[in-house]
Parts: sequence; structure tokens; C-alpha cells
Amino acid sequence: METVAAVDWGTSSFRLWVLDAAGAVLAERRSAEGMSTLAQDRFEPVLRSHLASLPEAERPSRVVICGMAGARQGWREAPYADVPVSLPGIVSRAVTVPAEGLDVRILPGLASRDETAPDVLRGEETQLLGLALDDPALGGLVCMPGTHTKWVLLEKGAVRGFSTVMTGELFALLSKESILRHTLAGEAPTGDPAADPFRAGLATALADPGGLVARLFGIRAGGLLFGTAGSAAADRLSGLLVGADVAAGLGGSAADEPVVLVASGRLADIYAAALQAAGRTVRPVDADDAVRHGLFHAARQIWPG
Amino acid sequence: METVAAVDWGTSSFRLWVLDAAGAVLAERRSAEGMSTLAQDRFEPVLRSHLASLPEAERPSRVVICGMAGARQGWREAPYADVPVSLPGIVSRAVTVPAEGLDVRILPGLASRDETAPDVLRGEETQLLGLALDDPALGGLVCMPGTHTKWVLLEKGAVRGFSTVMTGELFALLSKESILRHTLAGEAPTGDPAADPFRAGLATALADPGGLVARLFGIRAGGLLFGTAGSAAADRLSGLLVGADVAAGLGGSAADEPVVLVASGRLADIYAAALQAAGRTVRPVDADDAVRHGLFHAARQIWPG
Repeated sequence: METVAAVDWGTSSFRLWVLDAAGAVLAERRSAEGMSTLAQDRFEPVLRSHLASLPEAERPSRVVICGMAGARQGWREAPYADVPVSLPGIVSRAVTVPAEGLDVRILPGLASRDETAPDVLRGEETQLLGLALDDPALGGLVCMPGTHTKWVLLEKGAVRGFSTVMTGELFALLSKESILRHTLAGEAPTGDPAADPFRAGLATALADPGGLVARLFGIRAGGLLFGTAGSAAADRLSGLLVGADVAAGLGGSAADEPVVLVASGRLADIYAAALQAAGRTVRPVDADDAVRHGLFHAARQIWPG
Repeated sequence: METVAAVDWGTSSFRLWVLDAAGAVLAERRSAEGMSTLAQDRFEPVLRSHLASLPEAERPSRVVICGMAGARQGWREAPYADVPVSLPGIVSRAVTVPAEGLDVRILPGLASRDETAPDVLRGEETQLLGLALDDPALGGLVCMPGTHTKWVLLEKGAVRGFSTVMTGELFALLSKESILRHTLAGEAPTGDPAADPFRAGLATALADPGGLVARLFGIRAGGLLFGTAGSAAADRLSGLLVGADVAAGLGGSAADEPVVLVASGRLADIYAAALQAAGRTVRPVDADDAVRHGLFHAARQIWPG
């Protein structure tokens, strides 16, 4: 197999790896040129500019893409595959995008057409494909935290169902746009899962997830009455929202099963702490590795030669 | 007693009634000149401009104010009274604001200095004062819905405790600033408590309040997969948030006690439906009457002559 460009093209970021025939990384490009910043006719020029910045010898003509580039408001719509679905099977549903001199494929997202709890995802299916092919025995509940945390039930390489919790987006809205912003005062959480305000918020939300909505304003009141510092307020908000996310995500799942946690960096630490606080054991998987492996597996299936 | 100007000065609105010695309304003024739109030195000119617009014969020199005008970032801070507190007792803690030719008093808000669940309110204490003096036997749980819904435990004219749920603010943030805005498309809820999407959202949140965070994104997914209309999406979001508010607010309260609902207009209808869906009987009180009565009672106590 020739080299391939494996692209994770999300709402707010672009990431490209050049992979050789064995899946080894020859080069990498990152930028903030996510879907939300691009009109439809800008995707191809952005991709070409990143490819052009590579040394000619390793410049691929084959490009496999996952994520929001395949949304209706992206480059070209790659219609959702409905769950339950076998992950290797989704690769055959990739759409081909005409682009002179290039062979560009966009992988589909997944949809759950349950009328009482409809849901969609894009990008995570490729991380799950990477997980499922790296370790076919892997199964159970998968936690994929982020702007929109995805909780996925994985079984023998198939997705049985999933749900979304808008945790990162809620954190951003509450910390920047709500009345709580006066107390957070622009400060970010420490990101330390051992910080007391994070742990206290986490414990509160795990013990009474339905009470979350009655706990948020306490962050503002704590600032007014006790002069809570901005970073402590941010940690508490993070703890409350992550706790509510984990409580809802674990739902009725079997308490003795480990949870597969697909995350990187600070998010991995925070969610591992939250899952452990909820009494669960965690099996960590690096999110960047997972999506790269998923894209590589997809490329091998699309271009077996 | 001479005439008095009774002013409810909130975050986003100004409302003034001229009351005679018996509490009857001689005139009324409303505007959008709430605290959030005013620098500290603009409160007095705004008040004077409303007074100047009244016929000279009924222009009061006595002014009693409740609400955010008494916040630190308002006209003049009226320090909080701590709960538990007897409502008639808070009137003696009003602060006097120097203003030539006028006698201006601002009533204090209430604070709950519980370190694990700190909370504050301003304005609702005056509605509660009106309730308590209009009907001394009134007690139990009081629901005061709005931008920030307040749930208050009232007992023999005293506030035992209270909590805040940021329901109206969450609705505004999610409908206008989050990814759900693409599905709501600028449409408001119908406000009809019998509308199916409102009732379905309400039932979902009441049955599983902790699952709220996992239900929000379904509104966006419903738009993508089933083409949900904007007003239906807004009704569902309203139902989910009001249901979560009511579930958290009722908490462990006795199921056979009626809930006093202090609200006006559409909010009164929606929360009455939500409380009834949660199996509670509702005792409705008009919110505008309550604050006016509270201000009148305060005026009589401040200026008994």
C-alpha cells in the first residue's frame, strides 16, 4: 500500500497524519481549520494546502477522512449508518469526493433512530473501529469524553447503541455566558482531579444527579457570600458536570464491568477519577491512537493493494 | 399615610406602582431599565424620570424598592438577611439611600450561608412578605419560577431555607447559544402546557431527573434525523428543563402537601401543569400581586404615620 493521509476533521480542528503501509506515522499536520470555520468550498483548498506542505516524496494521493467534514454542513455529506452496526462494515459506506489527482473518501457517522432518544455521532465511530480492530475482545461500555461526551455500548466489534452528554459545551456556556461567569472570572479549571472543589462537585453530582440543576447557582452564591476564587469555582463546575455526565452515562450498566475510557491528556485524568469515584474500574485507551488506527484500518480496507 | 412609590427593580426590568394609604394602585410605570442596563449613577435619574412622569398630585416622595437595585452592583447594597428569618423582620433592615427631596429605602435580599449549598435571592423575599402577611396560615413549599426559579420553605411567616434552579437562564443559553439553536431556529416555545413535545419532555425529566444531561442533545439529533420543527424542539427543551426544575425543587418534600405557586401568565400555566404531572396539588398566587402587597406592607411598617 502507498502512503495515505489519515484525516480527523472535526468541528473545531483539523488533524492529518501521513501513514506508511504499516501504519507508521511519517508526518503530522494540525490546525484550527475545523468544519465550523469553513464554507463548503474551502475544504478542498485547506486539504490541498496541508498536503502541499509535505515533502514531495511522502505526499499521498489517497486521503481517508472522518468527522464533521462528512456532515451535511461539511465538505460532502456521508449519510449516517444506523445502529446496531458492525464497525468494519461502515467503511464500505464511505463516500468518494471528486478532487483532481486525489482519491478522497469520507467515512459515515452513526445514527440511533430511536424516536424517544435520537442520537448521532461523527468521528467517534472511527475511534471505535480502531479499538475494535486493535482488540476484537474489547466490549462493554465505552466512555468518550469531550465537547459532546459519547457513551457507547460496544459488543464484538459492533455498536449496539450510544448516547450523548453535552458536557464540554455546557461547561463553556455556563462558565462564559451564564451568571456564573462573574464568579469564574475567566479562570479555567486547574484540571487536577485531586483538587478539593472538583472532588466535592463530583461527589455531589454522583450522589444526586437529579439535583444538578439546583447546584449550579450555588457557585455564584459561593462567590457572593464566601468570595470563592475563580479557579475553585471552575473546578467545582467541572466536578458537577463531569459527575452528572458519568452518572447518566453509567445508567443501568453492570457495576462490575470495567469501562473503556477513550481520551487523552487532562480529560483522561478527570474522567478516570470520576469513573473511579463512581466505583468503576477503568480501561484507558488513548483517543489519538484510536482514531489514527481506525483511519488506518479503513484505508487498508478501501485500498487493499 | 401619604402615597408611596413601590418599586420592583430587577435585573432586566423596572416596575413602579403608586399606592394610596389603603394599598390601591393609583398609577403604574414599567420599563426595561433593569439593573443590568444601568451604571450605579443612573439609578437615581431613572427613578426621578418615572416619578416626574406622574401627575403632580399623586407624585410620592416616599419610595420603597426591592430586587437587584439592592445588589452590590446595583444602586446601593442592601446586605442580605440570613435564613432562617422572619419576613416582617427584614423590613427594619432596609437601607436608606440619600436622594434630595425623596425618602428612598431598599429592602434586603436573603442569604443561605450553608457552605455546601450557599444561595441568595433578591426580590422574592418581598413577594414572600406579601404572601405571609396576606395569609399568615400559608406555609410549606413555595415555587417561584423564572429566570432563576426559587424554591422556598415557608413556615409561619418565616423562611426556613431556599434553593435556586437557573431554569430560564439555561433555556435561554441552550436555545440561543448551544448547538441546539440549529434545531430551535430562533423559535419560541408555544407556551402551551398541553403541547405534546412539552408534555413528553416533562414526563421524561420527571421520571429520570438525573438523565436530563443525556437528553438535551436528542433535540439536535431529532432535528437532523426526523426534521423536528423549531417550536416543537423549543417545547421539548422547555418540558425537559421545567421537569428537571420541579423534580429537584420538590426534592424530599411531603407528597400530600399543596405547593404554593407564585407566578403570572404563561409561567403560571406551565409550572402548574408540571407540578400536577409530578402528582402535587397547586395553590396559585399571582406574582405581581404578591410583590406589590409585600412592598405595601413594608411601606406601612417603614412609614406608619
